[in-house]
Amino acid sequence: MFRDLILKNRSYRRFYESESISGDTLKELVDLARLSPSGANRQSLKFHLSAGDMNDEIFGTLSWAGYLKDFDGPEPGERPSAYITIINDNDLGGGEVNAGIAATGILLGAAEKGLGGCMFGAVDRKKLAAYLKLPEHMEIVLVIALGRPKETVVLEDVKPDGDIKYWRDANRVHHVPKRSLEDIIYNCK
Amino acid sequence: MFRDLILKNRSYRRFYESESISGDTLKELVDLARLSPSGANRQSLKFHLSAGDMNDEIFGTLSWAGYLKDFDGPEPGERPSAYITIINDNDLGGGEVNAGIAATGILLGAAEKGLGGCMFGAVDRKKLAAYLKLPEHMEIVLVIALGRPKETVVLEDVKPDGDIKYWRDANRVHHVPKRSLEDIIYNCK
Repeated sequence: MFRDLILKNRSYRRFYESESISGDTLKELVDLARLSPSGANRQSLKFHLSAGDMNDEIFGTLSWAGYLKDFDGPEPGERPSAYITIINDNDLGGGEVNAGIAATGILLGAAEKGLGGCMFGAVDRKKLAAYLKLPEHMEIVLVIALGRPKETVVLEDVKPDGDIKYWRDANRVHHVPKRSLEDIIYNCK
Repeated sequence: MFRDLILKNRSYRRFYESESISGDTLKELVDLARLSPSGANRQSLKFHLSAGDMNDEIFGTLSWAGYLKDFDGPEPGERPSAYITIINDNDLGGGEVNAGIAATGILLGAAEKGLGGCMFGAVDRKKLAAYLKLPEHMEIVLVIALGRPKETVVLEDVKPDGDIKYWRDANRVHHVPKRSLEDIIYNCK
């Protein structure tokens, strides 16, 4: 069932870095994004793939897990094996909603393959744009890090204090509080 | 395979309106969005559900298929059976990428159930916000129309002239030109 794939698709931040992901696999994932909806069918997004060659540079532009004060990103050996950078061609139209659609297709496709990853909006865009030699009209929207996950992520209910910050326990299990269905359904009556 | 679900999830604009969608089904779909990633886990999105009671009002706020000059939206009898309006609580953070993620979960879940729909960014937000009695800090990001699809949508390659406008043939089959994988992969070398 699709719900199982949704549940499998957690945000992972530690990986078996030695397990590589091929360029062909990355292309298969981008093809899922290609076949997804796009506002006014403009298809303004472009995708940069790194299956190794630019991993170090891209890693250095990402801010990891802001709520974990003792975690500045994964150590060598636990870093992502690949990255897909989602870029919007502003000459073709807007891209934020479209990037969310594309990234979801990519990450659900990765989950089906036993891979996992994490979306980054907190990116040093100036630095990464220089690495990628992006022309002026092309703007980085998101970076997706990918690998075979090396951590356990569990969902739990948001407590009455309303705190939504994820946290790690002593066994390095990553806990993510989720709001209830009742809480997110808006009733205007 | 997940790719089959991606392919099944086309943007539909004509439906069997007499086939209703229950509130419970809409809640199941929103639950998929609830369990999806959210930037910094803020979960700033709220979801308004209409399984009939507000359909006419919501329909009147949507702009349908801008490229089809002879189609001003579906006729009575072919209109959506339900709507999910995605609203961002701006007090909790930003929402465009998150709305794209949420809408994708909802529409893929709908496709699995034999339903289909269409995302709308072209919404008369002022009018709809008044219908929904939204407070100042809550902003409509997207409307998703849902129903059992009554049309055939086919993908085709973008032609050399680069035209991405969808079109309808004499049999009312809806054609959607998609860019090639080579065209959307950005190579900085």
